[in-house]
Amino acid sequence: MAEIAVMGHGVVGSGVLEVLLSHTDSISKRAKEEIHVKRILDLREFPDLPYSGCFTKDFGDILNDPEIRIVVEVMGGLEPAFSYVKACLENGKSVVTSNKELVAQKGAELLALAQKNNLNFLFEASVGGGIPIIRPISQCLAANEMTEIAGILNGTTNFILTKMIREHMAFGDALALAQKLGYAERDPSADVEGIDACRKICILASLAYGTHVYPSGVHTEGITSITKEDVGYADAWGGVIKLIGEVKKLENGRVHIQVAPMFISRESQLANVDDVFNGILVRGDATGDVVFYGKGAGKLPTASAVVADVIDCVRHLRSDRKILFWEDAKPDYVQPWEDTPQDLFVRVSGKEDSDSLFDLAQQVFPEAVRLIRRDEEQGETGFTLSDVTENQLKAKIPPLEERGLKLENRITIADF
Amino acid sequence: MAEIAVMGHGVVGSGVLEVLLSHTDSISKRAKEEIHVKRILDLREFPDLPYSGCFTKDFGDILNDPEIRIVVEVMGGLEPAFSYVKACLENGKSVVTSNKELVAQKGAELLALAQKNNLNFLFEASVGGGIPIIRPISQCLAANEMTEIAGILNGTTNFILTKMIREHMAFGDALALAQKLGYAERDPSADVEGIDACRKICILASLAYGTHVYPSGVHTEGITSITKEDVGYADAWGGVIKLIGEVKKLENGRVHIQVAPMFISRESQLANVDDVFNGILVRGDATGDVVFYGKGAGKLPTASAVVADVIDCVRHLRSDRKILFWEDAKPDYVQPWEDTPQDLFVRVSGKEDSDSLFDLAQQVFPEAVRLIRRDEEQGETGFTLSDVTENQLKAKIPPLEERGLKLENRITIADF
Repeated sequence: MAEIAVMGHGVVGSGVLEVLLSHTDSISKRAKEEIHVKRILDLREFPDLPYSGCFTKDFGDILNDPEIRIVVEVMGGLEPAFSYVKACLENGKSVVTSNKELVAQKGAELLALAQKNNLNFLFEASVGGGIPIIRPISQCLAANEMTEIAGILNGTTNFILTKMIREHMAFGDALALAQKLGYAERDPSADVEGIDACRKICILASLAYGTHVYPSGVHTEGITSITKEDVGYADAWGGVIKLIGEVKKLENGRVHIQVAPMFISRESQLANVDDVFNGILVRGDATGDVVFYGKGAGKLPTASAVVADVIDCVRHLRSDRKILFWEDAKPDYVQPWEDTPQDLFVRVSGKEDSDSLFDLAQQVFPEAVRLIRRDEEQGETGFTLSDVTENQLKAKIPPLEERGLKLENRITIADF
Repeated sequence: MAEIAVMGHGVVGSGVLEVLLSHTDSISKRAKEEIHVKRILDLREFPDLPYSGCFTKDFGDILNDPEIRIVVEVMGGLEPAFSYVKACLENGKSVVTSNKELVAQKGAELLALAQKNNLNFLFEASVGGGIPIIRPISQCLAANEMTEIAGILNGTTNFILTKMIREHMAFGDALALAQKLGYAERDPSADVEGIDACRKICILASLAYGTHVYPSGVHTEGITSITKEDVGYADAWGGVIKLIGEVKKLENGRVHIQVAPMFISRESQLANVDDVFNGILVRGDATGDVVFYGKGAGKLPTASAVVADVIDCVRHLRSDRKILFWEDAKPDYVQPWEDTPQDLFVRVSGKEDSDSLFDLAQQVFPEAVRLIRRDEEQGETGFTLSDVTENQLKAKIPPLEERGLKLENRITIADF
């Protein structure tokens, strides 16, 4: 019998209990012993549950119980999750978490602590919900250099963009619908500003390349500036707009990492990842492109990923710890985003008709390739540029303005 | 230093050497020790390779070498692979294989032998090439009941069907092109008759539900009877034809399993898996649909999956063996295919015009829903039926013939 504790009885926490109770037999078989939830930490009262007797409001009841050797942290947020998890790892307890903020901010420190004490710190559920991605990256693709990882990592923004693309909704209307359906929080900023996707690509980048990338070091754009016009130009270009978290290993040993809405070709395997689904592309030198697709969030998918980690922990109580590890951040490890050349879509506005506007834009960008969207209106034009850095683009704003052109938006064009 | 042997130096075997030699550092780091290929078994001579000194034609050199504790079998075919693998497992050596025929035919026996001797028998490369699928099914999805697995498991047939769909090629022309490009063998029967896909769905079914399903017990159709007309009717229906290996757990404890070309809705995540790519959908009660996509074959993808298994074996030399296991076949475990109701597309021909033919067909199948394909010709009609068993359909052939109608083809309609 393996005794575990669950910290947090919100959506994911209650899902963990549900999965454990509804799949008892198959889980015991996989874990090779029974798993029993001895304690659940939550400040709220849940008097009517079959396991109401397990609840405690005192973290000490978990920390100081030597029978509990595995602790599940599904509270979310940085504190007190970080202090509790750290204390667990310092006191001989392995930890499983679904908390992406915790892993993205404190992963290197907690992994080092786990390694030092020969414990597991596992977090499959922190990225991609029920899609297995942490384990495949760390294990199956071990015999493979990952040149690039790119993913649709946030279901809420993908739902909003899908509505904008398929039903031509404006951003605000699509957001309101997402809120109404419960896909977006009342304060949607962590999703629509790209913060959630940023935490996830940081976790994947750290794991894939062995060096911690902190969210603060990652150029992060959300989707709030994406308009119906942009969606139309993406269509004219032959693709769709998706919010992508992307990391590439560069030949100089650094990584190029960013979160941004991108033009994605309709031929790309990520182009058809719609609604609240996530899709993650892992490009390897030996495997080629491998794509993982599924529901990136939700109570039961996330809970089943947590429980799979718990099973692994139970099995590893009797043997070697798993090898999930990365080093702390290194200076200059992240390539400066502003100096990284990328293909770009640029949309400008002005007082003249579209043809004249494009002619004027071409005086500034002679290599511009024009796009004409369906329902294009006078006073706007759009075009693509190849291999331009953000700094180069910024330097062109004054000459654009001299010609009466306003830069309305610039969107990265993906290369996958 | 972990000493291993590689049996077979064909496409995959030479790829294994290439991956091991080109990723030495990262592999040693993952495996926590260096991996050294001590012996390579092949009847041919390879005098000009840097590792030519390792070759032997005598299996005894591997079997009787106590230093070699992990053996890679990439010869293919049932014999002598089976005898060699069995001897290895009986003599304390873990085995990694990419040989789907071996695993589909002898998996239960070899897994039992491995378990008895506390060794590993791993075969990630046997399904999906470089796509991680065996490990995710056995580990990540442990806390999840898999209700269904459906996959495009054979790249050659998927390439042929893609050409038939996109470029309106006939089957024979598309096959000839696949042969010219090296995607199909000169004798393409294992691919186009569905035999390869059958082996793979047997492996996935055995793993997912814990009971061995042998290929001989699986209804298997290939794609040789698929015509341009069928492709056209699939398009009219709103989908494409893909060769699918499918297994479902039934409420009676049995499995429904088949390999067949199927109509797949354009909305399905498998509909966009084109060319030589594979895609595998795993439907779980907790995770929902998870899809794995990538190159299902090829030297380096397959070799990297083999090497990932070797790394796991090396790590597990020092601890518990992995839990891959299934029991041997049970009587009546596979639901009789002929009595399983499915939705069907039916194409008939006759001497009259299409409208009259459909009217006559409707006398036999009052519930038939007509499809009209682009470029439909007189003398043919197509329609769909809901919840029909093969035996029910067969019983309708005489009444069809009485009305001058010939059953040209019937194709299963997928429900994913």
